[in-house]
Amino acid sequence: MSDATRLQALLDAMPPVRALGVRVARCDVDGVVLEAPLALNVNDKACAFGGSLASLLTLAAWGALESALQRRGVRAEVFVADSRLDYTAPLYGDLRAEADAPDAAALGALLHKLAGRGRGGIVLEARVVDAEGRAVTTLRGRYAAVATR
Amino acid sequence: MSDATRLQALLDAMPPVRALGVRVARCDVDGVVLEAPLALNVNDKACAFGGSLASLLTLAAWGALESALQRRGVRAEVFVADSRLDYTAPLYGDLRAEADAPDAAALGALLHKLAGRGRGGIVLEARVVDAEGRAVTTLRGRYAAVATR
Repeated sequence: MSDATRLQALLDAMPPVRALGVRVARCDVDGVVLEAPLALNVNDKACAFGGSLASLLTLAAWGALESALQRRGVRAEVFVADSRLDYTAPLYGDLRAEADAPDAAALGALLHKLAGRGRGGIVLEARVVDAEGRAVTTLRGRYAAVATR
Repeated sequence: MSDATRLQALLDAMPPVRALGVRVARCDVDGVVLEAPLALNVNDKACAFGGSLASLLTLAAWGALESALQRRGVRAEVFVADSRLDYTAPLYGDLRAEADAPDAAALGALLHKLAGRGRGGIVLEARVVDAEGRAVTTLRGRYAAVATR
């Protein structure tokens, strides 16, 4: 099973994520890209609902860490601990959230903490971009990973 | 039409909000309380999905400002500009988000800006509480209001 297929199955198992029509467009060593149609995520002003943007961003960064751990054979559950969201422009098209793969040094430190203490944290970033690739909403969040065996 | 009925209609007009089963439990001069069933907002770990918590909090604070302006006869559209979310504990029950009414002095300053410049900003807070009333996720966000006539 590819990383993208596995992540899609994880997302489809969550009713509120399925409701937003989230599709994994990419999931590999460079990061995660999630897409969702505007029609399922529109607000009363005909643009993307802030909560949908927050959901997609939170999931993209979560997926980037979850799949990075999975690829290394690390068994851990990943939670969002806090986040800062900046909505810089309205989005009148479909949603596309991009999360970079975790920074190599930060991921190394997290793996060290997971091995030693069974848990650790890492800061991740993601952005929703419009059709021209401009960021319209950004997330910077702290995620926690907890070893499950 | 009561403030709660009007806010419920606004929320029901947004597909991603309807999908989460959001119900207006209170909307009055003291603030807004929104509820949503865990079953529609559950993640892969059997607790509330972070994106659903973010959505409910973003909407509760939005509704508190939107209805405060409406009660004063002010025609304006309200947008979230940025937010900080802190997820302090997992929630294994139904979701309940509480937003206080905007602070009187801050609302006065916003009304002054709206009248003079046609737009203004305000900081709002909201929290999701568990069955015992303990905050499990908090939001502190900046909202913008733009006069529509």
